[in-house]
Amino acid sequence: MQLYDLAGRDPEHRFSPYCWRSRLALAHKGVEAEIIPWRFTDKPAIVFSGQGKVPILVDDKNIIIDSTRIADYLEAKYPDRPSLFGGPEARALTGFIVTWTDLVLLPALVRCYVSDIVRHLDERDRGYFRETREARFGMTLEATTSDRDTKLPALRQMLAPLRQILGQQAYLGGAEPLYADYVVFGGFQWGRMVSRFDILEEGDPVWAWRERMLDTHDGLARRAPCCG
Amino acid sequence: MQLYDLAGRDPEHRFSPYCWRSRLALAHKGVEAEIIPWRFTDKPAIVFSGQGKVPILVDDKNIIIDSTRIADYLEAKYPDRPSLFGGPEARALTGFIVTWTDLVLLPALVRCYVSDIVRHLDERDRGYFRETREARFGMTLEATTSDRDTKLPALRQMLAPLRQILGQQAYLGGAEPLYADYVVFGGFQWGRMVSRFDILEEGDPVWAWRERMLDTHDGLARRAPCCG
Repeated sequence: MQLYDLAGRDPEHRFSPYCWRSRLALAHKGVEAEIIPWRFTDKPAIVFSGQGKVPILVDDKNIIIDSTRIADYLEAKYPDRPSLFGGPEARALTGFIVTWTDLVLLPALVRCYVSDIVRHLDERDRGYFRETREARFGMTLEATTSDRDTKLPALRQMLAPLRQILGQQAYLGGAEPLYADYVVFGGFQWGRMVSRFDILEEGDPVWAWRERMLDTHDGLARRAPCCG
Repeated sequence: MQLYDLAGRDPEHRFSPYCWRSRLALAHKGVEAEIIPWRFTDKPAIVFSGQGKVPILVDDKNIIIDSTRIADYLEAKYPDRPSLFGGPEARALTGFIVTWTDLVLLPALVRCYVSDIVRHLDERDRGYFRETREARFGMTLEATTSDRDTKLPALRQMLAPLRQILGQQAYLGGAEPLYADYVVFGGFQWGRMVSRFDILEEGDPVWAWRERMLDTHDGLARRAPCCG
Protein backbone atom coordinates (compact mmCIF):
# COMPACT_ATOMS: atom_id res chain seq x y z
CA MET A 1 0.00 0.00 0.00
CA GLN A 2 1.05 3.53 -0.72
CA LEU A 3 -0.25 6.73 0.83
CA TYR A 4 0.31 10.03 -0.95
CA ASP A 5 0.87 12.60 1.78
CA LEU A 6 1.36 16.35 1.49
CA ALA A 7 4.96 17.39 2.21
CA GLY A 8 6.74 20.67 2.78
CA ARG A 9 10.11 21.84 1.52
CA ASP A 10 11.57 19.15 3.76
CA PRO A 11 10.03 15.94 2.33
CA GLU A 12 9.79 14.55 5.89
CA HIS A 13 7.69 17.49 7.03
CA ARG A 14 4.01 16.44 6.94
CA PHE A 15 1.23 18.69 8.16
CA SER A 16 -1.99 18.11 6.16
CA PRO A 17 -4.85 17.55 8.64
CA TYR A 18 -6.55 15.19 6.19
CA CYS A 19 -3.41 13.13 5.61
CA TRP A 20 -2.89 12.80 9.36
CA ARG A 21 -6.32 11.18 9.57
CA SER A 22 -5.15 8.52 7.13
CA ARG A 23 -1.71 8.09 8.70
CA LEU A 24 -3.32 7.41 12.06
CA ALA A 25 -6.04 5.20 10.55
CA LEU A 26 -3.34 3.04 8.97
CA ALA A 27 -1.51 2.84 12.30
CA HIS A 28 -4.78 1.94 14.07
CA LYS A 29 -5.16 -1.00 11.70
CA GLY A 30 -1.50 -1.92 12.08
CA VAL A 31 -0.95 -1.53 8.34
CA GLU A 32 2.41 -0.48 6.98
CA ALA A 33 2.16 1.73 3.92
CA GLU A 34 4.81 3.43 1.87
CA ILE A 35 4.33 7.16 2.44
CA ILE A 36 4.93 9.11 -0.76
CA PRO A 37 5.64 12.79 -0.30
CA TRP A 38 3.61 14.98 -2.61
CA ARG A 39 3.46 18.73 -3.19
CA PHE A 40 0.48 20.91 -4.17
CA THR A 41 1.84 21.56 -7.65
CA ASP A 42 2.72 17.91 -8.36
CA LYS A 43 -0.66 17.49 -10.08
CA PRO A 44 0.78 15.20 -12.79
CA ALA A 45 1.98 12.73 -10.14
CA ILE A 46 -1.63 12.04 -9.01
CA VAL A 47 -3.49 12.40 -12.30
CA PHE A 48 -4.08 8.61 -12.06
CA SER A 49 -6.49 9.32 -9.18
CA GLY A 50 -8.79 11.43 -11.33
CA GLN A 51 -8.54 14.45 -9.03
CA GLY A 52 -5.95 16.78 -7.53
CA LYS A 53 -5.82 16.28 -3.76
CA VAL A 54 -4.23 14.05 -1.15
CA PRO A 55 -4.47 11.80 0.77
CA ILE A 56 -4.69 9.03 -1.84
CA LEU A 57 -4.38 5.39 -0.86
CA VAL A 58 -3.16 2.98 -3.52
CA ASP A 59 -3.68 -0.70 -2.75
CA ASP A 60 -2.67 -2.73 -5.77
CA LYS A 61 -5.42 -1.94 -8.31
CA ASN A 62 -7.56 0.03 -5.85
CA ILE A 63 -7.17 3.79 -5.78
CA ILE A 64 -9.00 5.44 -2.89
CA ILE A 65 -9.28 9.21 -2.64
CA ASP A 66 -10.68 11.24 0.27
CA SER A 67 -9.73 10.57 3.88
CA THR A 68 -13.20 9.36 4.91
CA ARG A 69 -13.32 6.85 2.05
CA ILE A 70 -9.83 5.69 2.97
CA ALA A 71 -11.01 5.00 6.52
CA ASP A 72 -14.04 3.10 5.21
CA TYR A 73 -11.79 1.10 2.87
CA LEU A 74 -9.43 0.13 5.66
CA GLU A 75 -12.33 -0.81 7.93
CA ALA A 76 -13.83 -3.05 5.23
CA LYS A 77 -10.51 -4.61 4.26
CA TYR A 78 -9.42 -5.39 7.82
CA PRO A 79 -12.60 -6.24 9.73
CA ASP A 80 -10.71 -8.38 12.24
CA ARG A 81 -8.27 -5.68 13.27
CA PRO A 82 -9.24 -2.98 15.79
CA SER A 83 -12.26 -1.14 14.44
CA LEU A 84 -11.86 2.50 13.39
CA PHE A 85 -15.50 3.19 14.23
CA GLY A 86 -17.04 0.52 16.47
CA GLY A 87 -19.90 -0.62 14.27
CA PRO A 88 -22.37 0.89 11.80
CA GLU A 89 -24.10 3.19 14.29
CA ALA A 90 -20.77 4.56 15.46
CA ARG A 91 -19.72 4.99 11.81
CA ALA A 92 -22.81 7.12 11.23
CA LEU A 93 -22.25 9.19 14.38
CA THR A 94 -18.63 9.77 13.34
CA GLY A 95 -20.07 11.64 10.35
CA PHE A 96 -21.14 14.61 12.48
CA ILE A 97 -17.68 14.84 14.05
CA VAL A 98 -16.17 14.88 10.54
CA THR A 99 -18.48 17.66 9.33
CA TRP A 100 -17.94 19.70 12.53
CA THR A 101 -14.19 19.37 12.03
CA ASP A 102 -14.34 20.25 8.33
CA LEU A 103 -16.77 23.16 8.65
CA VAL A 104 -16.00 24.64 12.09
CA LEU A 105 -12.60 23.57 13.43
CA LEU A 106 -10.41 23.59 10.30
CA PRO A 107 -11.75 26.88 8.85
CA ALA A 108 -10.94 28.55 12.19
CA LEU A 109 -7.48 26.94 12.40
CA VAL A 110 -6.47 27.82 8.85
CA ARG A 111 -7.02 31.49 9.75
CA CYS A 112 -4.43 31.04 12.52
CA TYR A 113 -1.85 29.11 10.55
CA VAL A 114 -2.01 29.91 6.86
CA SER A 115 0.88 32.39 7.01
CA ASP A 116 3.01 29.78 8.81
CA ILE A 117 2.15 27.07 6.33
CA VAL A 118 3.43 29.00 3.34
CA ARG A 119 6.87 29.41 4.96
CA HIS A 120 7.30 25.62 5.09
CA LEU A 121 6.22 24.85 1.56
CA ASP A 122 8.50 23.85 -1.22
CA GLU A 123 9.60 26.79 -3.35
CA ARG A 124 7.48 25.50 -6.27
CA ASP A 125 4.30 25.39 -4.14
CA ARG A 126 4.47 28.83 -2.55
CA GLY A 127 3.07 30.88 -5.43
CA TYR A 128 0.20 28.45 -6.00
CA PHE A 129 -0.65 28.29 -2.32
CA ARG A 130 -0.47 32.04 -1.75
CA GLU A 131 -2.55 32.83 -4.80
CA THR A 132 -5.36 30.31 -4.14
CA ARG A 133 -5.59 31.05 -0.39
CA GLU A 134 -5.38 34.83 -0.73
CA ALA A 135 -8.24 34.64 -3.26
CA ARG A 136 -10.23 32.54 -0.77
CA PHE A 137 -9.66 34.88 2.19
CA GLY A 138 -9.74 38.13 0.20
CA MET A 139 -6.54 39.34 1.85
CA THR A 140 -2.87 38.43 2.23
CA LEU A 141 -1.98 35.35 4.25
CA GLU A 142 -0.23 37.57 6.76
CA ALA A 143 -3.30 39.79 7.16
CA THR A 144 -5.47 36.68 7.59
CA THR A 145 -3.54 35.51 10.65
CA SER A 146 -2.56 38.93 12.04
CA ASP A 147 -5.39 39.01 14.61
CA ARG A 148 -5.00 35.44 15.83
CA ASP A 149 -4.02 36.55 19.33
CA THR A 150 -7.15 38.61 19.72
CA LYS A 151 -9.23 35.76 18.32
CA LEU A 152 -7.95 33.31 20.97
CA PRO A 153 -10.89 33.69 23.38
CA ALA A 154 -13.38 33.00 20.55
CA LEU A 155 -11.32 30.04 19.32
CA ARG A 156 -11.24 28.54 22.79
CA GLN A 157 -14.98 29.10 23.12
CA MET A 158 -15.47 27.24 19.81
CA LEU A 159 -13.81 24.22 21.46
CA ALA A 160 -16.34 24.18 24.34
CA PRO A 161 -18.19 21.02 23.17
CA LEU A 162 -14.88 19.20 22.73
CA ARG A 163 -13.64 20.44 26.10
CA GLN A 164 -16.75 19.29 27.93
CA ILE A 165 -16.81 15.77 26.53
CA LEU A 166 -13.04 15.30 26.93
CA GLY A 167 -13.44 16.28 30.57
CA GLN A 168 -15.77 13.27 30.90
CA GLN A 169 -13.99 10.61 28.84
CA ALA A 170 -10.42 10.02 27.67
CA TYR A 171 -11.22 10.07 23.93
CA LEU A 172 -14.13 10.96 21.70
CA GLY A 173 -14.29 7.21 21.09
CA GLY A 174 -14.38 6.45 24.84
CA ALA A 175 -11.57 4.62 26.61
CA GLU A 176 -9.52 4.25 23.40
CA PRO A 177 -9.10 6.52 20.37
CA LEU A 178 -11.27 5.93 17.32
CA TYR A 179 -11.30 7.45 13.85
CA ALA A 180 -13.30 10.43 15.20
CA ASP A 181 -10.33 11.26 17.43
CA TYR A 182 -7.94 11.16 14.47
CA VAL A 183 -10.21 13.48 12.50
CA VAL A 184 -10.24 16.17 15.19
CA PHE A 185 -6.62 15.60 16.19
CA GLY A 186 -5.51 16.13 12.57
CA GLY A 187 -6.44 19.80 12.98
CA PHE A 188 -4.29 20.23 16.08
CA GLN A 189 -1.40 18.30 14.55
CA TRP A 190 -1.57 20.62 11.50
CA GLY A 191 -1.03 23.59 13.82
CA ARG A 192 1.76 21.89 15.79
CA MET A 193 3.59 20.97 12.60
CA VAL A 194 3.82 24.50 11.24
CA SER A 195 3.82 26.93 14.16
CA ARG A 196 4.62 27.61 17.79
CA PHE A 197 1.30 29.46 18.06
CA ASP A 198 -0.96 27.21 20.13
CA ILE A 199 -4.63 27.77 20.74
CA LEU A 200 -4.62 25.36 23.70
CA GLU A 201 -3.43 26.02 27.23
CA GLU A 202 -2.02 23.50 29.65
CA GLY A 203 -4.85 22.56 32.03
CA ASP A 204 -7.40 22.47 29.21
CA PRO A 205 -8.88 18.95 28.90
CA VAL A 206 -8.39 19.34 25.14
CA TRP A 207 -4.67 19.90 25.76
CA ALA A 208 -4.51 16.72 27.89
CA TRP A 209 -6.34 14.76 25.17
CA ARG A 210 -3.93 16.09 22.54
CA GLU A 211 -1.05 14.83 24.69
CA ARG A 212 -2.65 11.39 24.82
CA MET A 213 -3.17 11.49 21.06
CA LEU A 214 0.49 12.40 20.53
CA ASP A 215 1.41 9.27 22.47
CA THR A 216 -0.84 6.84 20.55
CA HIS A 217 0.67 4.34 18.12
CA ASP A 218 4.14 4.62 19.68
CA GLY A 219 4.09 8.39 19.46
CA LEU A 220 3.63 8.48 15.67
CA ALA A 221 2.38 12.07 15.70
CA ARG A 222 4.79 13.23 18.42
CA ARG A 223 7.82 11.83 16.60
CA ALA A 224 6.95 13.57 13.32
CA PRO A 225 9.51 16.25 12.42
CA CYS A 226 8.04 19.55 13.44
CA CYS A 227 9.03 23.01 12.22
CA GLY A 228 8.36 25.89 14.60
CA MET B 1 -42.39 4.25 35.34
CA GLN B 2 -43.04 7.95 35.69
CA LEU B 3 -41.39 10.80 33.85
CA TYR B 4 -41.57 14.30 35.26
CA ASP B 5 -41.84 16.62 32.27
CA LEU B 6 -41.91 20.42 32.16
CA ALA B 7 -45.38 21.77 31.31
CA GLY B 8 -46.79 25.16 30.40
CA ARG B 9 -50.00 26.82 31.51
CA ASP B 10 -51.76 24.08 29.57
CA PRO B 11 -50.59 20.89 31.33
CA GLU B 12 -50.54 19.11 27.95
CA HIS B 13 -48.12 21.68 26.50
CA ARG B 14 -44.59 20.23 26.72
CA PHE B 15 -41.56 22.00 25.30
CA SER B 16 -38.43 21.28 27.34
CA PRO B 17 -35.67 20.13 24.94
CA TYR B 18 -34.21 17.88 27.64
CA CYS B 19 -37.57 16.27 28.43
CA TRP B 20 -38.15 15.59 24.72
CA ARG B 21 -34.92 13.58 24.71
CA SER B 22 -36.37 11.36 27.41
CA ARG B 23 -39.85 11.16 25.87
CA LEU B 24 -38.35 9.94 22.59
CA ALA B 25 -35.88 7.62 24.34
CA LEU B 26 -38.80 5.95 26.14
CA ALA B 27 -40.66 5.61 22.81
CA HIS B 28 -37.52 4.18 21.17
CA LYS B 29 -37.44 1.47 23.83
CA GLY B 30 -41.18 0.94 23.54
CA VAL B 31 -41.67 1.78 27.21
CA GLU B 32 -44.90 3.33 28.44
CA ALA B 33 -44.37 5.80 31.25
CA GLU B 34 -46.80 7.98 33.09
CA ILE B 35 -45.90 11.55 32.16
CA ILE B 36 -46.26 13.88 35.13
CA PRO B 37 -46.55 17.57 34.28
CA TRP B 38 -44.28 19.76 36.37
CA ARG B 39 -43.70 23.49 36.58
CA PHE B 40 -40.50 25.40 37.34
CA THR B 41 -41.75 26.57 40.72
CA ASP B 42 -43.02 23.13 41.80
CA LYS B 43 -39.70 22.52 43.56
CA PRO B 44 -41.36 20.68 46.50
CA ALA B 45 -42.83 18.11 44.11
CA ILE B 46 -39.36 16.90 43.08
CA VAL B 47 -37.44 17.39 46.30
CA PHE B 48 -37.28 13.56 46.46
CA SER B 49 -34.81 13.69 43.54
CA GLY B 50 -32.27 15.76 45.47
CA GLN B 51 -32.23 18.52 42.85
CA GLY B 52 -34.54 20.95 41.13
CA LYS B 53 -34.75 20.07 37.42
CA VAL B 54 -36.61 17.77 35.05
CA PRO B 55 -36.63 15.31 33.38
CA ILE B 56 -36.68 12.86 36.24
CA LEU B 57 -37.44 9.19 35.66
CA VAL B 58 -38.89 7.21 38.55
CA ASP B 59 -38.80 3.45 38.17
CA ASP B 60 -40.02 1.87 41.39
CA LYS B 61 -37.17 2.60 43.84
CA ASN B 62 -34.84 4.05 41.20
CA ILE B 63 -34.80 7.82 40.74
CA ILE B 64 -32.83 8.92 37.71
CA ILE B 65 -32.12 12.59 37.05
CA ASP B 66 -30.50 14.13 33.95
CA SER B 67 -31.57 13.20 30.42
CA THR B 68 -28.26 11.51 29.54
CA ARG B 69 -28.40 9.32 32.65
CA ILE B 70 -32.02 8.47 31.85
CA ALA B 71 -30.94 7.27 28.39
CA ASP B 72 -28.13 5.19 29.92
CA TYR B 73 -30.57 3.73 32.44
CA LEU B 74 -33.06 2.73 29.75
CA GLU B 75 -30.28 1.23 27.61
CA ALA B 76 -29.02 -0.86 30.54
CA LYS B 77 -32.51 -1.91 31.66
CA TYR B 78 -33.70 -2.95 28.16
CA PRO B 79 -30.63 -4.33 26.38
CA ASP B 80 -32.77 -6.52 24.09
CA ARG B 81 -34.90 -3.67 22.76
CA PRO B 82 -33.66 -1.36 19.98
CA SER B 83 -30.44 0.25 21.17
CA LEU B 84 -30.42 4.00 21.82
CA PHE B 85 -26.73 4.16 20.92
CA GLY B 86 -25.49 1.15 18.99
CA GLY B 87 -22.76 -0.09 21.31
CA PRO B 88 -20.15 1.39 23.63
CA GLU B 89 -18.19 3.20 20.91
CA ALA B 90 -21.35 4.81 19.59
CA ARG B 91 -22.33 5.72 23.16
CA ALA B 92 -19.00 7.54 23.54
CA LEU B 93 -19.36 9.34 20.17
CA THR B 94 -22.88 10.43 21.14
CA GLY B 95 -21.21 12.41 23.91
CA PHE B 96 -19.84 15.01 21.50
CA ILE B 97 -23.26 15.47 19.90
CA VAL B 98 -24.72 16.03 23.37
CA THR B 99 -22.11 18.64 24.30
CA TRP B 100 -22.45 20.38 20.91
CA THR B 101 -26.22 20.55 21.42
CA ASP B 102 -25.94 21.77 25.01
CA LEU B 103 -23.21 24.35 24.41
CA VAL B 104 -23.82 25.53 20.82
CA LEU B 105 -27.33 24.74 19.59
CA LEU B 106 -29.48 25.32 22.70
CA PRO B 107 -27.77 28.57 23.80
CA ALA B 108 -28.41 29.96 20.30
CA LEU B 109 -32.03 28.75 20.25
CA VAL B 110 -32.92 30.10 23.68
CA ARG B 111 -31.95 33.56 22.42
CA CYS B 112 -34.62 33.13 19.70
CA TYR B 113 -37.38 31.70 21.83
CA VAL B 114 -37.10 32.86 25.43
CA SER B 115 -39.69 35.63 24.99
CA ASP B 116 -42.12 33.10 23.47
CA ILE B 117 -41.53 30.56 26.23
CA VAL B 118 -42.58 32.95 28.98
CA ARG B 119 -45.96 33.56 27.32
CA HIS B 120 -46.80 29.86 27.58
CA LEU B 121 -45.79 29.34 31.19
CA ASP B 122 -48.17 28.90 34.04
CA GLU B 123 -48.90 32.17 35.87
CA ARG B 124 -46.92 30.93 38.90
CA ASP B 125 -43.79 30.26 36.81
CA ARG B 126 -43.59 33.51 34.87
CA GLY B 127 -41.95 35.68 37.51
CA TYR B 128 -39.36 33.02 38.36
CA PHE B 129 -38.56 32.39 34.71
CA ARG B 130 -38.32 36.06 33.76
CA GLU B 131 -36.14 36.91 36.73
CA THR B 132 -33.66 34.04 36.34
CA ARG B 133 -33.37 34.36 32.54
CA GLU B 134 -33.14 38.14 32.48
CA ALA B 135 -30.31 37.90 35.02
CA ARG B 136 -28.58 35.34 32.78
CA PHE B 137 -28.90 37.41 29.59
CA GLY B 138 -28.44 40.81 31.23
CA MET B 139 -31.50 42.20 29.45
CA THR B 140 -35.24 41.69 29.14
CA LEU B 141 -36.51 38.53 27.46
CA GLU B 142 -38.01 40.66 24.70
CA ALA B 143 -34.70 42.46 24.09
CA THR B 144 -32.90 39.09 24.01
CA THR B 145 -34.97 37.84 21.08
CA SER B 146 -35.55 41.18 19.33
CA ASP B 147 -32.75 40.68 16.80
CA ARG B 148 -33.57 37.07 15.96
CA ASP B 149 -34.44 37.90 12.35
CA THR B 150 -31.09 39.55 11.75
CA LYS B 151 -29.33 36.63 13.46
CA LEU B 152 -30.90 34.08 11.10
CA PRO B 153 -27.95 33.87 8.65
CA ALA B 154 -25.53 33.21 11.54
CA LEU B 155 -27.91 30.64 13.06
CA ARG B 156 -28.17 28.80 9.78
CA GLN B 157 -24.40 28.91 9.41
CA MET B 158 -24.11 27.37 12.89
CA LEU B 159 -26.09 24.39 11.57
CA ALA B 160 -23.61 23.76 8.71
CA PRO B 161 -22.12 20.56 10.20
CA LEU B 162 -25.60 19.17 10.81
CA ARG B 163 -26.73 20.19 7.32
CA GLN B 164 -23.77 18.52 5.64
CA ILE B 165 -24.10 15.18 7.39
CA LEU B 166 -27.90 15.11 7.03
CA GLY B 167 -27.41 15.63 3.31
CA GLN B 168 -25.44 12.37 3.31
CA GLN B 169 -27.49 10.15 5.62
CA ALA B 170 -31.10 10.09 6.84
CA TYR B 171 -30.29 10.43 10.54
CA LEU B 172 -27.27 11.20 12.70
CA GLY B 173 -27.51 7.55 13.67
CA GLY B 174 -27.52 6.42 10.03
CA ALA B 175 -30.55 4.75 8.46
CA GLU B 176 -32.60 4.96 11.66
CA PRO B 177 -32.74 7.54 14.44
CA LEU B 178 -30.65 7.04 17.54
CA TYR B 179 -30.43 8.90 20.83
CA ALA B 180 -28.12 11.47 19.18
CA ASP B 181 -30.99 12.39 16.87
CA TYR B 182 -33.36 12.85 19.82
CA VAL B 183 -30.82 15.10 21.54
CA VAL B 184 -30.51 17.48 18.59
CA PHE B 185 -34.18 17.24 17.64
CA GLY B 186 -35.19 18.26 21.17
CA GLY B 187 -33.86 21.72 20.39
CA PHE B 188 -35.97 22.08 17.26
CA GLN B 189 -39.04 20.66 18.98
CA TRP B 190 -38.60 23.25 21.75
CA GLY B 191 -38.82 26.01 19.15
CA ARG B 192 -41.80 24.44 17.36
CA MET B 193 -43.69 24.05 20.62
CA VAL B 194 -43.52 27.71 21.59
CA SER B 195 -43.27 29.81 18.44
CA ARG B 196 -44.02 30.20 14.75
CA PHE B 197 -40.50 31.63 14.32
CA ASP B 198 -38.54 28.93 12.51
CA ILE B 199 -34.81 29.01 11.86
CA LEU B 200 -35.12 26.32 9.16
CA GLU B 201 -36.25 26.77 5.56
CA GLU B 202 -37.95 24.16 3.40
CA GLY B 203 -35.27 22.67 1.17
CA ASP B 204 -32.71 22.59 3.98
CA PRO B 205 -31.63 18.97 4.67
CA VAL B 206 -32.05 19.80 8.36
CA TRP B 207 -35.69 20.71 7.67
CA ALA B 208 -36.22 17.36 5.89
CA TRP B 209 -34.59 15.51 8.80
CA ARG B 210 -36.82 17.36 11.28
CA GLU B 211 -39.85 16.22 9.25
CA ARG B 212 -38.65 12.62 9.48
CA MET B 213 -38.10 13.04 13.22
CA LEU B 214 -41.61 14.43 13.62
CA ASP B 215 -42.90 11.22 12.03
CA THR B 216 -40.94 8.77 14.19
CA HIS B 217 -42.70 6.71 16.86
CA ASP B 218 -46.11 7.24 15.27
CA GLY B 219 -45.65 10.98 15.10
CA LEU B 220 -45.16 11.40 18.85
CA ALA B 221 -43.50 14.81 18.46
CA ARG B 222 -45.79 15.94 15.62
CA ARG B 223 -48.94 15.10 17.56
CA ALA B 224 -47.86 17.05 20.65
CA PRO B 225 -50.11 20.08 21.26
CA CYS B 226 -48.27 23.10 19.93
CA CYS B 227 -48.89 26.73 20.76
CA GLY B 228 -47.98 29.28 18.10
